[in-house]
Amino acid sequence: MESPKRVKPYARPTEKRRGLLLVYTGEGKGKSTAAFGLALRAHGRSLKVRIFQFIKHQTARFGEHRAFATLGIPVEGLGDGFTWKSRDLLASARLAYEGWGRAKEAILSGAYHLVVLDEAIYPLRYGWIPLEEFLEVLRVRPEHVHVVVTGRDAPEELLHLADTVTEMRKVKHAFDQGIPAQAGMEH
Amino acid sequence: MESPKRVKPYARPTEKRRGLLLVYTGEGKGKSTAAFGLALRAHGRSLKVRIFQFIKHQTARFGEHRAFATLGIPVEGLGDGFTWKSRDLLASARLAYEGWGRAKEAILSGAYHLVVLDEAIYPLRYGWIPLEEFLEVLRVRPEHVHVVVTGRDAPEELLHLADTVTEMRKVKHAFDQGIPAQAGMEH
Repeated sequence: MESPKRVKPYARPTEKRRGLLLVYTGEGKGKSTAAFGLALRAHGRSLKVRIFQFIKHQTARFGEHRAFATLGIPVEGLGDGFTWKSRDLLASARLAYEGWGRAKEAILSGAYHLVVLDEAIYPLRYGWIPLEEFLEVLRVRPEHVHVVVTGRDAPEELLHLADTVTEMRKVKHAFDQGIPAQAGMEH
Repeated sequence: MESPKRVKPYARPTEKRRGLLLVYTGEGKGKSTAAFGLALRAHGRSLKVRIFQFIKHQTARFGEHRAFATLGIPVEGLGDGFTWKSRDLLASARLAYEGWGRAKEAILSGAYHLVVLDEAIYPLRYGWIPLEEFLEVLRVRPEHVHVVVTGRDAPEELLHLADTVTEMRKVKHAFDQGIPAQAGMEH
């Protein structure tokens, strides 16, 4: 009688290393911080990192901006800090599309190992960045370039293209229990 | 006829600011990186931060360790880098419990605004840190101290105590598609 074959607990990866497309989506906390944590890790490994932030105001100086500035990686704000109350949506749209132009250039240049597109899903959802153009840039990017995209409600086509997708599911949130946002924790 | 009352889209928080207990759990990627991103943000706001890591080896020098060292925040490894293949579980257990002693002291001292307990859920699940003692320290900690706990499969009692809980749900993962882990991205 033959002895049973040994079964490996995990299949050994067969594809080679290459730039990954990671998406952090969902309603829960931790999407942007996970992207920033990844940028920090990559920087710690001497990878070249570029961080774009599509929603926060260009002059915003939140905790992560200050910390990354210390590390010599500017967090580049591309939005106008629009909220749901924004009046001039056309200006917001133009700004987002211009910002996307800069991000696109950074991705396609191949000069960075990791490009973070924080909160890029909002302008995609609004149609301010054309989804097809966005996907095409990700498809044709240089092979070594990792890209991280964050934002709620990622389009199906983006999830399909991505290598790794995490949904940050909100189980509970302090705000819902009446605790206001706090500097250093929420922004 | 009375005009309809204006309804606020969000209830205004009524509780005052206080230290939060945040839990990042689930099978997906981004739990530790979200905790690190939060630590980075807090540090950028000049909050005092302490980071403990329960699983990685004490001599580990991963990307995040190097980057945080640059910022003057050591990532303090408390484990012995055990894997599922570990032989000396008793030694692992002792090391985890000793590490918990250091973390407990940091939390209760009130000297830090944010204490990260990365991968603390594993030793809790193994019983190496007694759950009741862990919860009690969190309950009686100084009011201003934020604590972040990460790890899969958080115990129900911890979720109950937490202010904010995010489940990182794995939608897909590059590894499952045969792409090996990469320095600067996965560690």
